[in-house]
Amino acid sequence: MKKVKKNSRGSKRVTRRGLMLVLSSPSGAGKTTLSRRLLEEDKGIELSISVTTRQRRPGEMGGRDYHFIDAAKFRTMKRNGDLLEWAEVFGNFYGTPRAPVERTLSAGKDVLFDIDWQGANQLKRKVGKDLVTVFVLPPSARELHSRLRRRAQDSEAVIRRRMAEAGKEMSHWDEYDYVIVNSDLEKAFAELRSILAAERLKRARQSGLAEFVRAMKRKL
Amino acid sequence: MKKVKKNSRGSKRVTRRGLMLVLSSPSGAGKTTLSRRLLEEDKGIELSISVTTRQRRPGEMGGRDYHFIDAAKFRTMKRNGDLLEWAEVFGNFYGTPRAPVERTLSAGKDVLFDIDWQGANQLKRKVGKDLVTVFVLPPSARELHSRLRRRAQDSEAVIRRRMAEAGKEMSHWDEYDYVIVNSDLEKAFAELRSILAAERLKRARQSGLAEFVRAMKRKL
Repeated sequence: MKKVKKNSRGSKRVTRRGLMLVLSSPSGAGKTTLSRRLLEEDKGIELSISVTTRQRRPGEMGGRDYHFIDAAKFRTMKRNGDLLEWAEVFGNFYGTPRAPVERTLSAGKDVLFDIDWQGANQLKRKVGKDLVTVFVLPPSARELHSRLRRRAQDSEAVIRRRMAEAGKEMSHWDEYDYVIVNSDLEKAFAELRSILAAERLKRARQSGLAEFVRAMKRKL
Repeated sequence: MKKVKKNSRGSKRVTRRGLMLVLSSPSGAGKTTLSRRLLEEDKGIELSISVTTRQRRPGEMGGRDYHFIDAAKFRTMKRNGDLLEWAEVFGNFYGTPRAPVERTLSAGKDVLFDIDWQGANQLKRKVGKDLVTVFVLPPSARELHSRLRRRAQDSEAVIRRRMAEAGKEMSHWDEYDYVIVNSDLEKAFAELRSILAAERLKRARQSGLAEFVRAMKRKL
């Protein structure tokens, strides 16, 4: 494999190993907004779209938000080892299909995962050092409550259950590599981009560096 | 100790543990330019000024570039454990005084170290996980050579010795956490800032987070 390529401006580009970026948070902390914007502005990372057995909500689209599948299909995928991780939340099943992740990584791109702490833990055991985990916290309980309340499509009972669930999810902040407190969306987004930029610069991820340095030293 | 403080805009600020950022490179790779600019634009990080027994060069200022001391004073500091690390390069001694580093860290700021691989290795053994190490590479042998040649104050013999030394220093790129290839100063600087921003967001460095989350959960 060629390790050092020229880019369009003729200077050398060092080959890099793809990474898997996990973004978790209690619902209402701004994770979905952050992910969508990252995917829009950074063409080097692609979203892993989960499969789920839960009902499609208004505004959601199959193949964009989730792949909506039935319980039988989910069990088959799980049994065949087609899922990198899976979890049960509120009686519904969620999972990450393995094949698209492997395709994206081997095309030299990074993969973004919008999954909870259970999924993050399973991925960590499976993929180890290729994984970078980020937890997004709301700035305060009051702000979290008002964000959940603004989601008009959910009933009062659902909001209460989500607040309780948010508290539980939040307990797992200390299993993540990075923590972002989302008090300001612009600031939180800049922080997320910095994390991704820095992780791409990790020596161990720049797989072409050894050859790059060898080639340079031969010419000294 | 109070772990969660309010900032000027009234929102909560999470207490953070200071970090030690090491920047190394062969001379001519742009490390000094990058350090100076980082210190100008980021008031949360301060330079560790090394002591050295080498001659002051034209344009250098004691207390800004180095503390220029004699060999006897250097030996005394070394013997008394006043140096965090030290090294001999071209027959001259260089070292990092311990006291100012400890003062800066306990004031809640980060410390920047402009030192070579020998110093970086010694620091790593002493301070462990508080250390973040970055190696800056020139984009090519040709560019390195022309940058060294532009330093008119050095003689041809010095330039040749520096090229050889650059080759040796460069062999240590793979002992660093991050590697930046400095083909464009703006890009390299943005990368350095991303590394610092990301390292400040590491969960383990945000020492006030546990209390921040506890306080929030009580109000859910």
